[in-house]
Amino acid sequence: MKGKGSIGIGLMGLGVVGGGVVKALQEKGESLTKQVGCPLNLRRVLVRDPAKPRSAKVAPRLLTTEVEDILSDPKIDIVIEVMGGETPALDYVREALSRGKHVVTANKEIMAKHGRGLLNLAYEHGVDLLFEASVGGGIPLIGPFKKDLMANQVSTVYAIINGTTNYILTRMANDGLDFATALRQAQELGYAEPDPTNDIEGIDAAYKLAILASLAFRADVRADDVYHEGISRLSARDFRYARELGYIIKLLAIAKREDGSIQVRVHPAFLPQGLLLAKVDGVFNAVQVDGDLTGRVLFYGRGAGAAPTSSAILADLISLAQDIHLGINTRPKLRLDPARVLKPMADIHTRYYLRMSVADRPGVLAQIAKILGDHLISIASVVQKEADEKAQTAELVIMTHPAREQAVQEALRKVEGLPVVEEINNFVRVEA
Amino acid sequence: MKGKGSIGIGLMGLGVVGGGVVKALQEKGESLTKQVGCPLNLRRVLVRDPAKPRSAKVAPRLLTTEVEDILSDPKIDIVIEVMGGETPALDYVREALSRGKHVVTANKEIMAKHGRGLLNLAYEHGVDLLFEASVGGGIPLIGPFKKDLMANQVSTVYAIINGTTNYILTRMANDGLDFATALRQAQELGYAEPDPTNDIEGIDAAYKLAILASLAFRADVRADDVYHEGISRLSARDFRYARELGYIIKLLAIAKREDGSIQVRVHPAFLPQGLLLAKVDGVFNAVQVDGDLTGRVLFYGRGAGAAPTSSAILADLISLAQDIHLGINTRPKLRLDPARVLKPMADIHTRYYLRMSVADRPGVLAQIAKILGDHLISIASVVQKEADEKAQTAELVIMTHPAREQAVQEALRKVEGLPVVEEINNFVRVEA
Repeated sequence: MKGKGSIGIGLMGLGVVGGGVVKALQEKGESLTKQVGCPLNLRRVLVRDPAKPRSAKVAPRLLTTEVEDILSDPKIDIVIEVMGGETPALDYVREALSRGKHVVTANKEIMAKHGRGLLNLAYEHGVDLLFEASVGGGIPLIGPFKKDLMANQVSTVYAIINGTTNYILTRMANDGLDFATALRQAQELGYAEPDPTNDIEGIDAAYKLAILASLAFRADVRADDVYHEGISRLSARDFRYARELGYIIKLLAIAKREDGSIQVRVHPAFLPQGLLLAKVDGVFNAVQVDGDLTGRVLFYGRGAGAAPTSSAILADLISLAQDIHLGINTRPKLRLDPARVLKPMADIHTRYYLRMSVADRPGVLAQIAKILGDHLISIASVVQKEADEKAQTAELVIMTHPAREQAVQEALRKVEGLPVVEEINNFVRVEA
Repeated sequence: MKGKGSIGIGLMGLGVVGGGVVKALQEKGESLTKQVGCPLNLRRVLVRDPAKPRSAKVAPRLLTTEVEDILSDPKIDIVIEVMGGETPALDYVREALSRGKHVVTANKEIMAKHGRGLLNLAYEHGVDLLFEASVGGGIPLIGPFKKDLMANQVSTVYAIINGTTNYILTRMANDGLDFATALRQAQELGYAEPDPTNDIEGIDAAYKLAILASLAFRADVRADDVYHEGISRLSARDFRYARELGYIIKLLAIAKREDGSIQVRVHPAFLPQGLLLAKVDGVFNAVQVDGDLTGRVLFYGRGAGAAPTSSAILADLISLAQDIHLGINTRPKLRLDPARVLKPMADIHTRYYLRMSVADRPGVLAQIAKILGDHLISIASVVQKEADEKAQTAELVIMTHPAREQAVQEALRKVEGLPVVEEINNFVRVEA
């Protein structure tokens, strides 16, 4: 059993991340062999087009367009999946697990949508499915959740886990840019894709939050469970008010467990300026966790990129390869509880920032305050300024005390119907 | 081999941390049993005085004053050592390992002074020695270094790993307190001990840095290798200048590897205000790591306290107990390379902040600049102000470009000898 001569690896995908993995395997071969106890042998690489020019130096005989070349190779012990996307990656990972191969994946989408099923499949076949690279790039997150924090009852996860949007929001906050300009600059720098929908609408963050929440609560939280709302509604004015009021706006991925139910949501949020998480700027990611024993901990680093993602993939790979080399095949497996109660978005309680254009005349605030009060929404502070004399309108900013989401939504609909209210410009949830 | 009915635990020490461990074991019994696969059974607790009143509720029959009651109990699989200090903890841990018992320890002193020897002893006897709780309380650090970051070549570790001094420095920076007042307030709040030497002189941080550096570089770095310098020389004026110049002063634990040599040092340092690490305030700890793949990552949380430390101890305990329950006894062991080249403090290169009282007359700066220039120390900026008209002195603050420590020390001795120089008030290294 012990002392396997070498560990065979099959790589699925040779894009940016795949290229980074190949490079790291090549440059760190000696150190990896020392850490594992035997060499890691890259036997096959699945690509779409073998003729495509690539920076990664892979011997042409290793390239294949047939997944079966990896799946049916008995010398391949571990499959590294870095194709991304649901199709055909999901099928390939399932098939690899079913044929008794360990899998290391960076694929947030398949883990967020099918994580529990895949983990169970791995369990049934006595293999491991590791996914440190699926969230937070090179930041150790899955490992700490699976091991270091395991004695904790986690109550809250607050995460900035999309570098594209954090870059855009940082530019809007620090340089007063509007959303469209900040997005364009992010695209020019390669931080945002030509079609930025997945990032700016919070879909990417929702995938990652589903994975983090599953680990934090050991429950089957799926991508579909996560409410998500993007950042495109935010304007430079919101950032100015936020600063004046002592806040910073971030696209926040939130997972909370209270009273036996779980809430998972991604949306822009006001965070107090003093919070370390609020100071995480640019393309960096950070995840803040509150545990009953450990209190508040925070993990920070680069959430994307070939090298950081390779760091996570290699950590999983080394750990697996050590086990294979030592003949350990009974490592405790991660299993997720299928039972979970999700709190509907309508039921969440939080504070709100409301910005609206109103008629600049007496009694307006009273009318608005009455509607809010009728919905049990209590006002914490009001700022009124920047009256537009020509249009005879003023801008009103209201910060509420904690209120129920549904009540706020209903009240806002009524406020919007008031003749003295021109427009509800924005509302943003306030977290602390 | 598989399916051990229960795991026996012996606890050495029932102080603040020991009490926290007992409480967590009691309150989380069911969840721990589920995670491990069988119950954890606390069989013995070593104390000095069984009659002492304690908040921890331990059945009196479990208390013993004889370490042999733990060491010779064949049903005790894991020893948790939370006595602290070198004597007699070191002997007890050695004996436990030699008799084939796994050990979980929170003892930074024995790990910093004897880590490599203890790990080798564990290896020889086929058991594990885990020490997540020895550094950074509830912050996952040892785990990430041992697993998640293992593919990385780590170049630098910058750590704020002493909560007492970070609290004092935060108060000095934010509230303009002098050192003595801030220390007294820390003592009143229980953040500093009646004899604060170990904390304020950087000894505690040096222990922890030795452990972190050993893991980061997989080398045998010992407490004695670490240069340490305390915070008592810092004055409110230094904090004012630091702020004006764009810096924050922290007691920094630094481990760097460059050109094949390792430097490990603990001393006050100027950190740029923009650095996330510089924003870590109060009793919180944070460790910033630069790896070749992952780039910069940072771990943040509470570095001390019964509950956070229990979180780390229980994580180690669960992990060990899972292995014992599953009959895994071949987990890859941590071994440290005995070979390492340490860079002498005299050879480090960094920038310096120099503050001195000088005669308030023309030509003084020229004399000082000449001595610095003669020692190849180049001046980056000079601030002169707050002349004391009566004494005819002025305060001069010089920021240097990177220079060799020895050159700076020699130059300062010569500057101090100048008739126009009243006093070198302080010098602080500047890191970035």
